[in-house]
Amino acid sequence: MRPTSGDIETNDRAIVRPVNALTATTKGAATRDAIIERAYEIARFSGVEGLSIGPLAQAVGMSKSGVFAHFGSREDLQRAVIESAATRFGEAVLIPALKEPRGLPRLRSLMHHWFEWVRGNSGGCVLLGSVTEYDDRPGPLHDQVLRNEQRWRTELRRAIQLAIDCGHLREGDTEQYAFELYAIPLAVHHESGLFGYELARRHGDQAIERWFANHSPNA
Amino acid sequence: MRPTSGDIETNDRAIVRPVNALTATTKGAATRDAIIERAYEIARFSGVEGLSIGPLAQAVGMSKSGVFAHFGSREDLQRAVIESAATRFGEAVLIPALKEPRGLPRLRSLMHHWFEWVRGNSGGCVLLGSVTEYDDRPGPLHDQVLRNEQRWRTELRRAIQLAIDCGHLREGDTEQYAFELYAIPLAVHHESGLFGYELARRHGDQAIERWFANHSPNA
Repeated sequence: MRPTSGDIETNDRAIVRPVNALTATTKGAATRDAIIERAYEIARFSGVEGLSIGPLAQAVGMSKSGVFAHFGSREDLQRAVIESAATRFGEAVLIPALKEPRGLPRLRSLMHHWFEWVRGNSGGCVLLGSVTEYDDRPGPLHDQVLRNEQRWRTELRRAIQLAIDCGHLREGDTEQYAFELYAIPLAVHHESGLFGYELARRHGDQAIERWFANHSPNA
Repeated sequence: MRPTSGDIETNDRAIVRPVNALTATTKGAATRDAIIERAYEIARFSGVEGLSIGPLAQAVGMSKSGVFAHFGSREDLQRAVIESAATRFGEAVLIPALKEPRGLPRLRSLMHHWFEWVRGNSGGCVLLGSVTEYDDRPGPLHDQVLRNEQRWRTELRRAIQLAIDCGHLREGDTEQYAFELYAIPLAVHHESGLFGYELARRHGDQAIERWFANHSPNA
């Protein structure tokens, strides 16, 4: 059993954990986070499949068994890295957008923050990489990647539906709308690697504004 | 110097090559093509960076020096595989589209054939893979990938410009138009790996028809 920051272990003798055990768990969680942080950086360039416990242990200055104490297996570690990528994405793209008024302001903010995510990850994106790695490889990591994608599409469709409800976008198939808006950051990612982020971003910004205009209820 | 099918070697004694030398060169070219074919299949799943002469020689049942006789270096081989991918793409997507009348019929055919390319390469696309591999890695392979992309964008913009000239699309920035149309097969590729090609294709077909409708001169 690996400790996570949210766990409270109970037994017959005590409901609350003694202070020294709590400190140990907090320290354990911090070490675990530091390992994931390092693994995430490796995965950005070598992919989630490029992760292995040995080199990672060396990179964080721990023994292999020290790393294994935090992650029962290589797959556990890979799962944690993919989860970390999804959390970072949510924090970078969704959370700031939710601060904007619902409707087009929120949807536009979401797309802009997505473009910023692309800027920060054009050298290598763990999320896009994991799709390429696991989309045709059945197993728990594949299922996790799929779940993350579905979660994200649900958020995107929710933001689109709110923009329709607010009268900012024409009524339509939100699944199709989500597909078309999703395509734009993919193209920004693709083009920025080849021809530079600034050009790709200009194309991306124009593409969403033109898409919004074409889907205005007054268009 | 490696023989290529287009070379005619001349010397002081003869302008035309003797028949037996010609046969040898033809056989050499066929062997070279067979090696590229096998390397292309490997690169679909392991990437162009996943190619190395040793395992490839084994896969085609030749000695390493036998393969080196056709490709002076690993990079030579990688270059040939990327070139082969670009040629296949042109033959699968551009050539059939050029048989359609210029304007929207040709542009639509091009997009449809591009979607068919995605169908055939959803397990692993050498062209998309090579962009990820070389977009941030300066060198001859990076330059080749960039040239291929530029060539393709030129063709796409030409097809768009013809559709404008025919009065099938509204006047506009063909670079921006090309970015937006390019985004759609990228999204089909991305989504087909996760949720199946047929769903992704329906979204892709709808996306281009909706894009065409939004850019009709009468819209």
